[in-house]
Amino acid sequence: MTSYAAPDAGATLSYEQAGVNYDLIDPLKVAAQRAAATTAGHLTAHGFSEVKASRGESAYVVDVGPFYLASIVECLGSKALVADEMKALTGKSYYAGIAQDTIAMAVNDLITVGATPLVVQAYWAAGGSDWFGDAQRAQALVEGWKQACDVCGVAWGGGETPALAGIVEAGRIDLAASCTGIINPKTRLSVGDKLAAGDAIVLLSSSGIHANGLSLARKLVERLPQGYLTEVAPGLSYGEALLAPTTLYSPVTEALAKAGVVMHYCANITGHGWRKLLRHPSALTYLIHSLPAVPPVLSFIQQHAHHDDREAYSTLNMGAGFALFVKAEDAQRTVEIARAQGVDAIVAGRVEAGAKQVVIAPIKVTFTDDDLQLR
Amino acid sequence: MTSYAAPDAGATLSYEQAGVNYDLIDPLKVAAQRAAATTAGHLTAHGFSEVKASRGESAYVVDVGPFYLASIVECLGSKALVADEMKALTGKSYYAGIAQDTIAMAVNDLITVGATPLVVQAYWAAGGSDWFGDAQRAQALVEGWKQACDVCGVAWGGGETPALAGIVEAGRIDLAASCTGIINPKTRLSVGDKLAAGDAIVLLSSSGIHANGLSLARKLVERLPQGYLTEVAPGLSYGEALLAPTTLYSPVTEALAKAGVVMHYCANITGHGWRKLLRHPSALTYLIHSLPAVPPVLSFIQQHAHHDDREAYSTLNMGAGFALFVKAEDAQRTVEIARAQGVDAIVAGRVEAGAKQVVIAPIKVTFTDDDLQLR
Repeated sequence: MTSYAAPDAGATLSYEQAGVNYDLIDPLKVAAQRAAATTAGHLTAHGFSEVKASRGESAYVVDVGPFYLASIVECLGSKALVADEMKALTGKSYYAGIAQDTIAMAVNDLITVGATPLVVQAYWAAGGSDWFGDAQRAQALVEGWKQACDVCGVAWGGGETPALAGIVEAGRIDLAASCTGIINPKTRLSVGDKLAAGDAIVLLSSSGIHANGLSLARKLVERLPQGYLTEVAPGLSYGEALLAPTTLYSPVTEALAKAGVVMHYCANITGHGWRKLLRHPSALTYLIHSLPAVPPVLSFIQQHAHHDDREAYSTLNMGAGFALFVKAEDAQRTVEIARAQGVDAIVAGRVEAGAKQVVIAPIKVTFTDDDLQLR
Repeated sequence: MTSYAAPDAGATLSYEQAGVNYDLIDPLKVAAQRAAATTAGHLTAHGFSEVKASRGESAYVVDVGPFYLASIVECLGSKALVADEMKALTGKSYYAGIAQDTIAMAVNDLITVGATPLVVQAYWAAGGSDWFGDAQRAQALVEGWKQACDVCGVAWGGGETPALAGIVEAGRIDLAASCTGIINPKTRLSVGDKLAAGDAIVLLSSSGIHANGLSLARKLVERLPQGYLTEVAPGLSYGEALLAPTTLYSPVTEALAKAGVVMHYCANITGHGWRKLLRHPSALTYLIHSLPAVPPVLSFIQQHAHHDDREAYSTLNMGAGFALFVKAEDAQRTVEIARAQGVDAIVAGRVEAGAKQVVIAPIKVTFTDDDLQLR
């Protein structure tokens, strides 16, 4: 990278400085989770029951008899703001990729419980009716949404396109997706009861930042000499690199199921970066011996935000978008199946008996349970 | 009402003047619907198929073998802005009711296809982390959400609570809900193939404006001498009246199913007011002979926005929150079952052979197909 001077260029830029304060959100989350848990009994009246282990997982699972039902709603976050800035700078519409990002947020979470995604619903809340008047942008959103549904093999059921002046900012759009799927046969359920010492950890590659860490990435722009047009690699601008669409992992999990590979557990690496490897409630040690290649945009962020490895791996996906925990003997086959679906993968580590921690040996970083409070 | 002078007090205030321009949104909606329809074939790979008649209905339905699966995502709209204004004026938090409104938007749509709602997911996108720092408001949102789930007998599966500074306005929240349900037994499917001349139209009462028409209602405040504190009835302010939580209709549809009353069709009366009675694709005439009582807040809006009956009934629910189409011989029993669930109802009309139109005889207003283009 070229050297330059910019405000605060020497100071570390943390995720909290970038504007997300989990201390304010987390008490509400806890209250909501507690209240939500009390409603599970309603399913009994219909002859059904919740899969209790799915509380605190990425998707909620209900036993409806012949199979399990899984559902979720997920928000894109602030990535669309980067698309808006880049449109102003380049004239290009990036909303096809943004559509894929939004679907990926929902689908990649839904599949962690072993579900086959069946139906996606679109939630496109604009700051006013005029957002939809930009035909090129609207068409890109529609096209990208459809293409992502095609990749995931899901039906696009419908959606909601409200104009929310006064709630959503003028010229902006709040994008989210809900997804419903089934776990069929029921043996595909992967809420973690199968996870055990000796299992292998396979990491699926990410395409870039995906849709988490964007608050930090956007804040960092203020430090860059040419803003979003600063090159992260020859011919690749920071903005373009950030906008690489999130990898869709459901083709991999579906192919694994077809091949008879049982997923013992999964983690979608989103907010909290590699701390998400601690998601499973058990006390187990996750020993990482091999690291995936880090996408240039993430190395760039780490460098310019002055993050040490610990901070970078605790915030960003650092090349690993999705973690699969499988039997050791299935590890290599899992890698091959993922690659056959166009998603690179490595056998990155193994599960061991021991204290709850992720030990990332190559960079000498350890995360413990104190580093991740999600439940 | 007291007489007063205010800017433009004599002019009609239309829905479009209130800021929602469907001409800009509708082309995107049509493009999205077309693209969505092409994705239905993906279900075949899983051995399933869509219920094609559900395209264009309020919820999307998939045949998964032993039963049908229904899913939806719905937005609250701008009603939270009224709660925010009223909080500033009275110090009270209205977010328990707002939570019910949000769930009602999803559940009342889902049940139109004959579904039993099973799982609700919360989508609470705030303008910044600090929104969640108001503990009283956050607690009201959680409590109200739980109570509405209790009324509907659904499990609250989880949700998403992003802080979206730069997309959602500071101090505001974008609220939505997704809902998944099943249609079981399959004979409960009510996407309209059973509707026929001779059927009765039963209208379930609304509690007020519900969550549609709020752009108009908020615009109207500018004309009122005391704004939201203007009385619509003795002791009842305009703001309080607007914030009456939306009626939840799933207890009624579930009770009907238990009693063996078959719903031939349903319409949730939301945007487009009574034009929603034209939702069914067939050419049939809907003759309304009896009108429900109009909630004071809706009479007040009609009067102060200078709407004639045609405009009022084409925009607001005017006392009818949900329409049930049943066999004539089931009509009176339907009314009794609804009342037993605490929801007032009347036998309001009947379906007749003839041109596609709603004839609201008591007020001499007719809506034709040209008045409603939803598909």
